[in-house]
Amino acid sequence: MRDERRAILKVGSGPEIAEMRITPIAVTDPPLRNAVGLHAPYALRTIVELVTQDGVSGLSEIPGNADTNEALESAREVVVGSDPFQLSAMRLALADRFSSRPEDKRGEQPWDQRRLVHVFSAVEVACLDIIGKLVGRPVVDLLGGMVRERVPFAAYLFYKLEGAGGELGLGTDPHAGGWAAARQAEALDPESIVIQAKAMCEEFGFVPLKLKAGVLEPQVEVGTMFALREAFGPEVPLRIDPNGVWSVETSIECGRRMKDILEYYEDPTRGQAAMAKVRRALGIPMATNMCTTSFEDIPNSIRLGSEDIILSDHHFWGGLRACVELGRVCQTFGRKLSMHSNSHVGISLMAMVHMAAAIPNIAYALDTHYPWQSEEVIAGGRVRFEDGAIRVPREPGLGIELDRGMLQKLHENFLRCGFAKRDDVTEMKKVDPDWEFKLIRW
Amino acid sequence: MRDERRAILKVGSGPEIAEMRITPIAVTDPPLRNAVGLHAPYALRTIVELVTQDGVSGLSEIPGNADTNEALESAREVVVGSDPFQLSAMRLALADRFSSRPEDKRGEQPWDQRRLVHVFSAVEVACLDIIGKLVGRPVVDLLGGMVRERVPFAAYLFYKLEGAGGELGLGTDPHAGGWAAARQAEALDPESIVIQAKAMCEEFGFVPLKLKAGVLEPQVEVGTMFALREAFGPEVPLRIDPNGVWSVETSIECGRRMKDILEYYEDPTRGQAAMAKVRRALGIPMATNMCTTSFEDIPNSIRLGSEDIILSDHHFWGGLRACVELGRVCQTFGRKLSMHSNSHVGISLMAMVHMAAAIPNIAYALDTHYPWQSEEVIAGGRVRFEDGAIRVPREPGLGIELDRGMLQKLHENFLRCGFAKRDDVTEMKKVDPDWEFKLIRW
Repeated sequence: MRDERRAILKVGSGPEIAEMRITPIAVTDPPLRNAVGLHAPYALRTIVELVTQDGVSGLSEIPGNADTNEALESAREVVVGSDPFQLSAMRLALADRFSSRPEDKRGEQPWDQRRLVHVFSAVEVACLDIIGKLVGRPVVDLLGGMVRERVPFAAYLFYKLEGAGGELGLGTDPHAGGWAAARQAEALDPESIVIQAKAMCEEFGFVPLKLKAGVLEPQVEVGTMFALREAFGPEVPLRIDPNGVWSVETSIECGRRMKDILEYYEDPTRGQAAMAKVRRALGIPMATNMCTTSFEDIPNSIRLGSEDIILSDHHFWGGLRACVELGRVCQTFGRKLSMHSNSHVGISLMAMVHMAAAIPNIAYALDTHYPWQSEEVIAGGRVRFEDGAIRVPREPGLGIELDRGMLQKLHENFLRCGFAKRDDVTEMKKVDPDWEFKLIRW
Repeated sequence: MRDERRAILKVGSGPEIAEMRITPIAVTDPPLRNAVGLHAPYALRTIVELVTQDGVSGLSEIPGNADTNEALESAREVVVGSDPFQLSAMRLALADRFSSRPEDKRGEQPWDQRRLVHVFSAVEVACLDIIGKLVGRPVVDLLGGMVRERVPFAAYLFYKLEGAGGELGLGTDPHAGGWAAARQAEALDPESIVIQAKAMCEEFGFVPLKLKAGVLEPQVEVGTMFALREAFGPEVPLRIDPNGVWSVETSIECGRRMKDILEYYEDPTRGQAAMAKVRRALGIPMATNMCTTSFEDIPNSIRLGSEDIILSDHHFWGGLRACVELGRVCQTFGRKLSMHSNSHVGISLMAMVHMAAAIPNIAYALDTHYPWQSEEVIAGGRVRFEDGAIRVPREPGLGIELDRGMLQKLHENFLRCGFAKRDDVTEMKKVDPDWEFKLIRW
């Protein structure tokens, strides 16, 4: 069987993948707070570029960490020499390598360090970019075509410390004015979050507002949601995401207070069973990117009824085609979909756009951290939102090219910054040595 | 939203579909018995050919009946002028037309008369054939690439009356000799089924044996399975399919007797609840193409545990991509997949091959009626099996072209034969006027 698989990787009549370039980068990131601590001055991402014998290249971007980068290096043996169309055979070959490690688990953080899904996501998105270029079609058309022409995003609001992160300050942000100031400003109370929300929405045109919670006392966070409601009115959908650090009781109590103002309630508490209890008690739509984060989690999710909306993420679910398949699973069981985000640049953003354009039951504006970053590795610089949405590109592949100068510069950031993985706890301890992460804080 | 959808159908930078040719055909079919009666002398299929502005054509084949053909005619308005890559948008547009009819139900037969799945399957497979030709790739590569290079099939054994069907007799069958005689011969007892099985396996190289049951007294059918076991030994996997006409009690009793000789037990009884009872009682793998036949059936299938193996069918599940997605659903819930068949010619056969080559958890040799037909509409004539399997083509698209002379001839058969839909009950009454279909016969 493995011999047959090896043969299949090479069956293509088209060009083989001749080169796999793996470039870790560090992107300036503001000191955003969350339930696990504090964003470091740099967000780590890894840019993967696959190049065929004929010089056609494909791009992808995944969360950066030393372990994933090492896995990517060892995936080279599978990927180089393969036909870019043989995605399933590559996945099986990579699964043989990466999925049996006992340490390859999801972990307790809202992010994800599993190797196989990240590595395959990196390979698949870059292959789809190549395929799109080879056939002259946008990636969305390789996923069944478009069901929407523009993909709306939500304003992602954060409690934060003062500063815009990194050593670069504001100078690199092309968006000056209201948003530049709000991005820089401290925001640790309801009023400053309202200012942040107004500035962000004015700059980007977002409509729904999402608050990253689990940071301050629950009553302050609930108060923040009511302040947003007061400032924006009932037409603006509101979401709150305490990242699982509220107990079932706190989640129910806070949920009862916010019942009438929430579009959905995201991961107030930890684990499918606890989420199901909260959901039964409240009867409002609940979303997750923490308790149901892989196909293996789906059977218990269905059995328990742990959420209404799965916040997909191609980096965490194993690629764009896997997320299309997740869309079918969700449709089958009456769940809806939206999308989760981490700090990222334009390659991930455009992959998200192609994917959301292809999945019929994406029912909510997507999350994105994009406004919080100011640098970019794609040619032409920062992607612009129009009325809070991104128009689906009709150019071949993802529709983007690398800015090699910026890639080099952000790679130098990576080499200089000294971070090897995301560690929001350690970063928080730098400003508050007594701070400890708690699975359930309130 | 509908305006946006209409715009999306035309977004392609490539050629639009300029023509949709719908050709009903009638293919000689032997007098095969089943739980619903008797195969008519002709099996009806409909061949769909889509042609782009640039003259690139794509083929598909679906079960033929007057109602489906009428639906296909009215699908023309959606399909002609569309970009062949916009499969999801076409599906949504067709769903607007066909899925809200109250009479659009699965019915009680082992075949399926739902319009949307058939119409979309016809459109999707032909579009994938076009896309494959446009990009120079086999259809399997549009489904994520190959996970196997050859697709094995099972010998599909039938109790039957004497004759090879139609008015054409044996002369059109290129496979003379043992199989030609067995195909012609009456088979209404265990001994003649063993002769049929040996001839079919010798001719085509099939290994697993499947008996279409629900025809004779259960003890005769169980006896047939033991006769096959006796003749072929324990290395040859055996399956029996009573098409749902056994009661739960009969299914359990017969299942207990055959427990140790079955690879799987297919649809002994009717409906998910009854299947689940039998499955719990026996603890052997059970398969279905009758109780779980659409994504809407999956939640209850999971809740009840009605089967282990879903016999997919791209004609019944809405296309090849839907079946890939079904593969993910099955993988997620620990179910396996194989494939159901009706009487068909080479276009359906090759679509099945591309699809089975792409789906990792296809775990069993596929069903096919193909050996029972003798005519063909594809250039080069009948597809050859090698050791019971078909090698996955590496030519662009489905890898086949129409034989227009044969298409015309089989269309004339259709016009002449006078059948407008499949009706095995009526056919049975022609040889036994007292015969009645019963949902549960034994």
